Amino acid sequence: MSANPVIENLSHHDPFSSWLGVKVISAEPGYSKITMPVREEMMNGFGIAHGGVTFSLADTAFGYASNGEGIITVALDTSISFSLPVYAGDLLTATARQLSNSRKTGVYLVEITNQHAQTVAIFKGTCYKTGKPHRTNTTGE
Amino acid sequence: MSANPVIENLSHHDPFSSWLGVKVISAEPGYSKITMPVREEMMNGFGIAHGGVTFSLADTAFGYASNGEGIITVALDTSISFSLPVYAGDLLTATARQLSNSRKTGVYLVEITNQHAQTVAIFKGTCYKTGKPHRTNTTGE
Amino acid sequence: MSANPVIENLSHHDPFSSWLGVKVISAEPGYSKITMPVREEMMNGFGIAHGGVTFSLADTAFGYASNGEGIITVALDTSISFSLPVYAGDLLTATARQLSNSRKTGVYLVEITNQHAQTVAIFKGTCYKTGKPHRTNTTGE
Amino acid sequence: MSANPVIENLSHHDPFSSWLGVKVISAEPGYSKITMPVREEMMNGFGIAHGGVTFSLADTAFGYASNGEGIITVALDTSISFSLPVYAGDLLTATARQLSNSRKTGVYLVEITNQHAQTVAIFKGTCYKTGKPHRTNTTGE
Repeated sequence: MSANPVIENLSHHDPFSSWLGVKVISAEPGYSKITMPVREEMMNGFGIAHGGVTFSLADTAFGYASNGEGIITVALDTSISFSLPVYAGDLLTATARQLSNSRKTGVYLVEITNQHAQTVAIFKGTCYKTGKPHRTNTTGE
Repeated sequence: MSANPVIENLSHHDPFSSWLGVKVISAEPGYSKITMPVREEMMNGFGIAHGGVTFSLADTAFGYASNGEGIITVALDTSISFSLPVYAGDLLTATARQLSNSRKTGVYLVEITNQHAQTVAIFKGTCYKTGKPHRTNTTGE
Repeated sequence: MSANPVIENLSHHDPFSSWLGVKVISAEPGYSKITMPVREEMMNGFGIAHGGVTFSLADTAFGYASNGEGIITVALDTSISFSLPVYAGDLLTATARQLSNSRKTGVYLVEITNQHAQTVAIFKGTCYKTGKPHRTNTTGE
Repeated sequence: MSANPVIENLSHHDPFSSWLGVKVISAEPGYSKITMPVREEMMNGFGIAHGGVTFSLADTAFGYASNGEGIITVALDTSISFSLPVYAGDLLTATARQLSNSRKTGVYLVEITNQHAQTVAIFKGTCYKTGKPHRTNTTGE
């Protein structure tokens, strides 16, 4: 469970990440680690996980790592390289870490592994800091 | 409706694209056009569509355009640039077209627009041709 | 020859593009077309043009297309897909065009072709508009 | 100085990397570290290093890390994020390491830092293994 109130609030109001089944293992400014079990309904027409599912997990980890400072930060540009196929029943882990940080932008690497510790995809993302603070609701959650 | 039997077969057995609500407008070798209505359950923690949803639509268009020749073709490397936020209620259109084609790989551009003809994201994808033929089931569908 | 004073000024004070041998065919806000003859000193250890040379041409076209409005605009994130090898003696043409344009950023596609009209590489770039105007020196050039 | 004969041979016959002034600090299968002093002739029209120069350094590190196994390996898809401007007089270091490795492809991360240990750019590259062996000339070099 994330101890960061910004990310805790974000992750509790994120319908698509909920559908994905994302579980936050750790989230702090510049870093996050999340997991997702891969389900049958995430498959594509080849019987392997749709690339969009793996991307979505990576993008979620990116968002949780880059928003931890309390400033609303949005994805500007991302790329993902697919290394190995993902199957229903796999448990994916995405680990995001900050590689650079300037006044308006940041660059993150997200490595996605399966339950055999094999790297299935690698994601690089550039975010833009809007400058607007998060409204965190830390009461009544 | 796609007249291409390979894509028709693919799209009928693609659980994640079905969840997305993808509708194939056109699909032929090197080109595809698909649409998706954006739903509340596709939102992220900021109340805008999760980047993974827009990526998934683009990646689906990429897959349909690059598999039309009947050879199983998989995404190797993709990048997406986000230009404008997407909201619940929007209707997105993704148009994929081939920019280059070599023996083993192809490069595609996918432009994603909303119902106001504004470009919300731009996707570039490189695919790898496995050399294995599709098994199309054109009977009993 | 470019008729745009901003680009004309930029291209006259660009030592690396001069070394590359870039010739501006056309440059206007949101669009540019430039050429470059490929020389022996641009080869890598395999006897084909170094990927950095092709990238540099594409990045120059991107810069000329995105700076034509008179606001200093810098590359933030770019990706390039290599389709065919480039050889000494080839004449490359890079054509850049704007795919999206928002208040702070823009996205451009650059297609690079050889003298046989074959696409050798495809580049996508996101730029950031600094908001600072260009200082153009239109006298005495 | 690289002790890897493949990379030593490659780097001795690489005209563009020679022009760049690349010095190999370390090169082994899956890893490389190289440096480059930034010169006036590498500047762009804004008086900062042309993005193509930084890319070229990163792409060289990528090539040296991915070719060390003795199989000719070519760049297929790469992306670079620019974090900080680079100036004439800077000394850049590019460190490449393998993030994934499959039968036909590999994915590498290259971090580029300046003499102040600041990250100026981050590069991700996917290479394709052609299957053809390098011809190394270890006599008479």
